[in-house]
This record gives sequence, structure tokens and C-alpha cells, in this order.
Amino acid sequence: MKGLFQYNWEVRHAWFKWCLSQPQEELVKKRSGGMGSIKKNLFHIVDVEVSWIYAILEKPDIQPDYSHYQTIQQIARFSDLHRSEIESVIFNYSSAFEHLPVKAAWSDEVCTQGDILRHLIAHEIHHIGQISVWTRESGSAPVSASYIGRKI
Amino acid sequence: MKGLFQYNWEVRHAWFKWCLSQPQEELVKKRSGGMGSIKKNLFHIVDVEVSWIYAILEKPDIQPDYSHYQTIQQIARFSDLHRSEIESVIFNYSSAFEHLPVKAAWSDEVCTQGDILRHLIAHEIHHIGQISVWTRESGSAPVSASYIGRKI
Repeated sequence: MKGLFQYNWEVRHAWFKWCLSQPQEELVKKRSGGMGSIKKNLFHIVDVEVSWIYAILEKPDIQPDYSHYQTIQQIARFSDLHRSEIESVIFNYSSAFEHLPVKAAWSDEVCTQGDILRHLIAHEIHHIGQISVWTRESGSAPVSASYIGRKI
Repeated sequence: MKGLFQYNWEVRHAWFKWCLSQPQEELVKKRSGGMGSIKKNLFHIVDVEVSWIYAILEKPDIQPDYSHYQTIQQIARFSDLHRSEIESVIFNYSSAFEHLPVKAAWSDEVCTQGDILRHLIAHEIHHIGQISVWTRESGSAPVSASYIGRKI
């Protein structure tokens, strides 16, 4: 679990950095699939991670408004802002928490902590895979997605 | 670990089934990014999983020739063929294996079992994310990528 979260944060950070080298129109260009643009995919990844971790922490969902996030730097700050709370869940996680029930405000279903963390891992990698295709379609090289070689 | 492998196998199976409802030309159509087509991405996912698990099992790499896999059914059979060997690694995995070194024939680097399994999880989800975008671009609905709701 921890290694895959660290991988996701490292890859996400590399994409934020990559975005800073791109013209803004590439980041907001309407694309098919995912959340519809590189910038929206990155915002969505952070938003979903914070929302589920807040549900585990029994904190109210913050529901950020995408229109307030005009730049990649703002999304990167949003990603950094809640990292310590997220780490408090991830780094303290053990099998004792696996089946603990979590009720998110936006769902009727009761989930378990283990399922939520695995959902977050898969959710981010999936949306990053989408960005990698859009990037190749625009003629750029994507950030490496390899887990091996990172020394996490 | 186990849950994310089971998720990947379930999603992969759903994509094989989805492929059977599609015209062959959609599956082999040249795309930007990933391995260049839906069929090649699916073959690559299976090939990479088998290769790394065989490295863990200290078996020689089988290096299958893509040109021998003309249909999705053949790739699905390839995926099923080695499942019991793969499960023997995944279902018996414990933290005792985390740092065990593995030397794959195709790499100079020595990896650990833990890193290889996390690599395989991320590798498959990443390539499935790419297929989901190609599918939307072709006007089809992708297989659900949600972990939550699967009762794994």
C-alpha cells in the first residue's frame, strides 16, 4: 500500500513539473475519455484522494470548486496541502484497519478502509495512464510510469 | 497486493469480453501511446506479468511472439494458462518475501519481490487506462475501472 501511494505521489509530482513546461492550451485542451483534459484529470486525482481520506478520518468532504483552480501550481498546492493528513492514514495503516467500515457522505454503500486505499491507488494510476496517451497524441513524451527503478 | 491483482484480473477479463463485442479492426487499429493498439496493450499486460512472475519463480522467460496471437481469445487463453503459477506467488506472498532479491534475465538490476509485484499492479492499471481513452475516442464506453463496488 505505502509503496504504491509513494509511487503515485512521485509520478503526480513529475506530471505537475512536466505541465509547467507545456503551453496552457495543451493542459486545458478538450480530450476524449477520463475527466476531459490533462488539468482536470490531475485535479480529479487530488480531489478524490482527499475526499476518501477525509471520509476515513470522519472529516466533512471539502468539495473544492474546479473553477477556482486556474493553474497547475494551484492544483500542486492543493495536492501538497492535505499530504500530512493523508500520510497519517497511509503510514499508520496496518491489517488491523483492513475491514474497518467507512461511510462516505456521497455514497449509500459502506466501504472498508482497505478497499478505499486500493481504490485510490488504482484510481490515480488509471487516470495517469489516460494522460500518457493524450500526451503522445500531442507529440510529447510522457512521464515514466515504471515502478521499478524508483528506489521507493 | 492480492486485492489489486484480483482487481486487475477481473478488469482484464471484462476487457477481453468487451473485445469480443468489437470489430477486429478496432482492436488492431494503430493508436498513439502505450503499445500502439488495444490488442497489443492487452497482450503486453499478460506478457509482462508472466515474465516477472517467472523471474520470481526462477524459471526461464518464455518470450511469446505477438504474431502468434491473432485473436483476443488466444490472448485470453495466454492469460489463463499461467494463472495458477502466478497465483502461487501472489496468494503465498507475505512481508517475509518483500526484500527477497530477484534477478531477471533481461535486466542488469536486481529487484525485490515486493517491488516487482507493485510494478505489475501499476503496469496493468496504467495500460488499461490507456485503452479506456482509445475506447472513448472510438465512441464506445470503457469497462469500469472502479475498485470499490467489486466485492473483491
